[in-house]
Amino acid sequence: MNSTHLDASLRWDGSRLTIVDQTLLPHREHWLMLDGAADTADAIRRLAVRGAPLIGMAAAYGLAMEVAAAPDPEPGMRTLREARPTAVNLAWAVDRVWAAAQDGGADAARAEAERIEAEEASASAAIAAHGADLLAGRRRILTHCNTGALAAGGEGSALGVICELARRGPVDVLACETRPLLQGARLTTWELARHGIPHHLIVDGAAAGLIRSGEVDAVIVGCDRVAANGDVANKVGTYAHALAAAAAGIPFVVAGPTSSIDETLPSGEQIVIEERAADEVRRAGGTLLTLPDVPVRNPAFDVTPAELVTALVTERGVLTAAPVTG
Amino acid sequence: MNSTHLDASLRWDGSRLTIVDQTLLPHREHWLMLDGAADTADAIRRLAVRGAPLIGMAAAYGLAMEVAAAPDPEPGMRTLREARPTAVNLAWAVDRVWAAAQDGGADAARAEAERIEAEEASASAAIAAHGADLLAGRRRILTHCNTGALAAGGEGSALGVICELARRGPVDVLACETRPLLQGARLTTWELARHGIPHHLIVDGAAAGLIRSGEVDAVIVGCDRVAANGDVANKVGTYAHALAAAAAGIPFVVAGPTSSIDETLPSGEQIVIEERAADEVRRAGGTLLTLPDVPVRNPAFDVTPAELVTALVTERGVLTAAPVTG
Repeated sequence: MNSTHLDASLRWDGSRLTIVDQTLLPHREHWLMLDGAADTADAIRRLAVRGAPLIGMAAAYGLAMEVAAAPDPEPGMRTLREARPTAVNLAWAVDRVWAAAQDGGADAARAEAERIEAEEASASAAIAAHGADLLAGRRRILTHCNTGALAAGGEGSALGVICELARRGPVDVLACETRPLLQGARLTTWELARHGIPHHLIVDGAAAGLIRSGEVDAVIVGCDRVAANGDVANKVGTYAHALAAAAAGIPFVVAGPTSSIDETLPSGEQIVIEERAADEVRRAGGTLLTLPDVPVRNPAFDVTPAELVTALVTERGVLTAAPVTG
Repeated sequence: MNSTHLDASLRWDGSRLTIVDQTLLPHREHWLMLDGAADTADAIRRLAVRGAPLIGMAAAYGLAMEVAAAPDPEPGMRTLREARPTAVNLAWAVDRVWAAAQDGGADAARAEAERIEAEEASASAAIAAHGADLLAGRRRILTHCNTGALAAGGEGSALGVICELARRGPVDVLACETRPLLQGARLTTWELARHGIPHHLIVDGAAAGLIRSGEVDAVIVGCDRVAANGDVANKVGTYAHALAAAAAGIPFVVAGPTSSIDETLPSGEQIVIEERAADEVRRAGGTLLTLPDVPVRNPAFDVTPAELVTALVTERGVLTAAPVTG
């Protein structure tokens, strides 16, 4: 089976995996041909492929190739599984393909990897359809970070909704650059240009003012994790957009698979905010922007309380966040 | 009279003006010695000196030097006055010094320039005292853009308040980098380091989440223009901080001279938002961050409605914004 995934980020020809090197985007579109566990693990480690679902898919194919070619695929399986220890989807995908290989060998491993990709693509398509139904008639859409084919299955989560909206009618996207790592400036605008969807890039701080001045009809973002009460952890900068959307009376919509909902977390209060390296803030595109030793706070994400979330769009349908008091 | 201005940005020795070249900060602290209208106008044009009050001060000294040395100072006066046509303070300062020169020659021109600097410094000092009284006991202060000695008289407006708070007790500043032009990352952190005030640099999108998680005791910013109803136009990114402060129940304070209040504007609705060059967003510190032709929206400022402004601190005292309905 050939890959059904949008060729923006990952291609599978039935025996070999090719991925676009995301570290070089958008300046160079360079494709890496991978043929086993070692080079796939290396691509994951150095962020040539990123986004939790996409990492899972790449690792699944990496292991399927390893099972087909290596006399003993187990060391390769371990290397892949540990390429990025914090990515939940990685271990989950590797375990699924490994179990299939134990039962049915190389053919079963390949089929399982293809199944994972198909499931991710189908979840994204369902999210896109539900989200586009919800946002019907809204043309000017603001989004944050990258939630497209460079992060997830198919056309992605929030960006998948935008693609579906664009198939149904005219759409104009405001893409936030998403400091510090600039996934919006580097990846989202590149994907939107490939899709032929009209868009403008803005600095993150411009979003609230543009929303207030009536230039945005809806905000849609992805999510890293949703607590049981509907609080949403997502890329840093998301919460301010939610506040501005609420103040302007426009929908603030979160898109993601149900697997993002963490029922073990009662609320966003329990989410520990990861602090990342200071140099991410001190630099942009490799260039030093400030003093080399300036102290930095660099929370990687923030929490948007459920009462600001108009709807959570999953592959199973649209959930309205429970009202939260206090 | 020697300059009373903090030596971070402008020094006057009674006959010659020296300014720090802000285009090279924070990587290099290079001082430019100026001796007349032509080189002062050039420094203003290429943004070596920026910030409306500071531009006015530099131009005043530039013209005073021209009057003292040039056989016919009028062409130099015109060059200076037109160096940045949109800066209101520039024409105002040049006109004052020119009128003094007509009446009393070089000595009167010099005295008038020194008076302008003294007035700006004294306005800043009064703002600092009123603001520090208002925010007494608040330690963790978030600010946006640059409002210090690199922009205004004395120690500046909002940053002047922070300096005064720091003299009275412990202060910890969160400085927003202020995309696209990074005045926070380049200038505010540099000034805070010189003042020895503890600080951390953050991306603009991190502010709201840090405010929500209880890590900020007050927000203080400067202003470009205040409408008669109390709506505040300030550097893009300001409005989101105000929303977050209101949601968290902490003060959102605006500091600026009464000359920033534009009584001819009934409300923020009438403020036309300047759109600046796309390359400011496409680049940071000269480095291209995205595709070279990506479409961009680049509003230079945003409007914070009066109901989100806890107080406006001017040299005359503290104003509480009038309540706004609708």
